[in-house]
Amino acid sequence: MRVLEKKDEVRNLVARARVGGRKIGLVPTMGFFHEGHLELMRLCRSRCGLCLVSIFVNPTQFGPAEDFDRYPRDLERDRALAEAESVDLIFAPAVEEMYAPDSSTVVLENLVSRGLCGLGRPGHFQGVATVVAKLFNIVQPDMAFFGRKDLQQLAVIRRMVRDLDFPVRVEAAPIVREPDGLALSSRNVYLEPEQRARAPGLYRALYRGAGMFSGAKGDTSPLLNEIHREIESATGGRLEYLSAVDEEMEEVDDASDCRYLAAALHLGPVRLIDNVEVA
Amino acid sequence: MRVLEKKDEVRNLVARARVGGRKIGLVPTMGFFHEGHLELMRLCRSRCGLCLVSIFVNPTQFGPAEDFDRYPRDLERDRALAEAESVDLIFAPAVEEMYAPDSSTVVLENLVSRGLCGLGRPGHFQGVATVVAKLFNIVQPDMAFFGRKDLQQLAVIRRMVRDLDFPVRVEAAPIVREPDGLALSSRNVYLEPEQRARAPGLYRALYRGAGMFSGAKGDTSPLLNEIHREIESATGGRLEYLSAVDEEMEEVDDASDCRYLAAALHLGPVRLIDNVEVA
Repeated sequence: MRVLEKKDEVRNLVARARVGGRKIGLVPTMGFFHEGHLELMRLCRSRCGLCLVSIFVNPTQFGPAEDFDRYPRDLERDRALAEAESVDLIFAPAVEEMYAPDSSTVVLENLVSRGLCGLGRPGHFQGVATVVAKLFNIVQPDMAFFGRKDLQQLAVIRRMVRDLDFPVRVEAAPIVREPDGLALSSRNVYLEPEQRARAPGLYRALYRGAGMFSGAKGDTSPLLNEIHREIESATGGRLEYLSAVDEEMEEVDDASDCRYLAAALHLGPVRLIDNVEVA
Repeated sequence: MRVLEKKDEVRNLVARARVGGRKIGLVPTMGFFHEGHLELMRLCRSRCGLCLVSIFVNPTQFGPAEDFDRYPRDLERDRALAEAESVDLIFAPAVEEMYAPDSSTVVLENLVSRGLCGLGRPGHFQGVATVVAKLFNIVQPDMAFFGRKDLQQLAVIRRMVRDLDFPVRVEAAPIVREPDGLALSSRNVYLEPEQRARAPGLYRALYRGAGMFSGAKGDTSPLLNEIHREIESATGGRLEYLSAVDEEMEEVDDASDCRYLAAALHLGPVRLIDNVEVA
C-alpha cells in the first residue's frame, strides 16, 4: 500500500491502473478510522480493482465555531488499518495541496442540503460538495463509497453527481453500530463515560420511532414530539433537530410520506447524528 | 461527422476513442457559428485525435430579461460548417437532456466573476461555470478550447479548472475580427446597418486606449474617461462598463498594472463585448 500526498502522483498511479483495465474505487474519509470506514473499504475492495482511500480533514466543511482543530487524527493508525483491508492507495494531502490561497470556486447544492444539518451548519454541505467534486476530479473513480450515517451528505453527493453529470457511481453502505446501538463516529472518543453510557438512547428512540411511523398516517407532530422527549430524557442531551424526511431530505407533513427519521443531538462536547429508515 | 443528442451516446463514443489512444478535444459553443468558432475547431482539430463540438444555448446563463429566446440558432448551417472543419462529433442536447426539472446544484466562482459582465449579468457566470462543468464531466476532454473575446469567461473557466481540479487543459484562441475591426459575435446579425457601420468604433477606441495604457503609470481615471467618451461618441452606443483589469479580472487603480482594457457596449438591440491586451 502506498501513501501519497500529491494530486499528480495520484493521477499518474490511477491512470496506470485504468490503462490496465482496473475499476477505480474511492472511499473519501476524514480519517481516524472506525469499523464504519473499514466496511466501506471492504465494499470498495470487493467491487474495484484499485481501492483508493482519501484522508483529508477538510477545513471548508467546518464552521468557524466547530471542531476542525480538535477533530481526531492518527495517520499511522489509519495506515495500518487500511493496509489490513488490502487498500491499494491512501491519498492524504495537506490543506495547501488541496486549496490555493485564493481559491474562489465552490459547488453549491440548494435543495437537499437546506434542512437538517444544513440549518445548524451553514456552509457545511458546500464544503463537502466542493471537496468531493475535487476528489472526483483528481481520482476520476468509477465508483465512490459513502456511509448511510451521513444520510444528508449521501443525498447531496447523489444530487451533485446527477446534476453535474459526474461519471461516478455512488454506492452507500449501512450504518455500523456499537453492540448497544450507538452509531460509530470518529467523534465518539470525546464522550465522557457517563455520556457514552446514555448515548445509545438516541438510536433506541429513533428505532422505536421508526416502528411508530411504519404504517402511520396523518400529522407527524404528535409522533415527533413523543420521540423528541424520549431522546432528550434518555440521553440527557439537547436535540438540534429531529425530522421526518423523504428521500430528498424534505420534511414531510404526513407520516405516511416519511422515509427516514433523522436527528442531531448535542451530548456534552459532541454533536451526534443518526438516522433510521422507516420500513 | 455524427450529431448526438444524448449524454450516454457521447460518453460511449468518447470512451471508445480514448481506448484507441486518441486525445479528446472539446469546443463548447452556443452554435450559430462564425469564423471565431471555426478557428477554435481548427485549433482543436490540430491538437486532438477526437474533435467534439457542443452546441447548447444554455438557459441558465441568460437573465430573465435577456435574449435566450431570440438567440440565433441554425443547426443545419452549423452542421455543414463543422463538417467542413473535419469535426468528428457534434453534441447538441435538448435543455431537458441537460437539466433535470429539479436540478439544484451549481458551480459558483466568487472572485474573477464578480466585476465586468458579472455586475450587469448576475447569475451569468454561475450558469456558464455549471454548464461547462457538466460538459467536462460528460465528455471528459483532455483539452477544451475557448475564445479570448469572452475574456472573463475564460478567466472564470481557468479558475474553476484550477480550484475544482478538473483534469482538462484549457486552451484559448485569439479574437477573430471583421476587416473593419468588429469582433465576431453571433449577435452581430441583429445590428441595423447604421449600427453595424458604427460598431467598429468600440475596437478602434480600445486599441488606441491600449496604446495609451502601454507604458503609462498612475491613476487610470483620466485615460478611461477619454476612451469612454471616444467609444460612445464613435458608436452612438451606451457603455455598460469600460475597465482596466489585471489577469484575474480585478480592476486596477494604477495604469501600470493594467493587462487588459475590456468593455461592454449597448448598441441598438445588441450588447457587444470586446477587449484588447495592453502590451
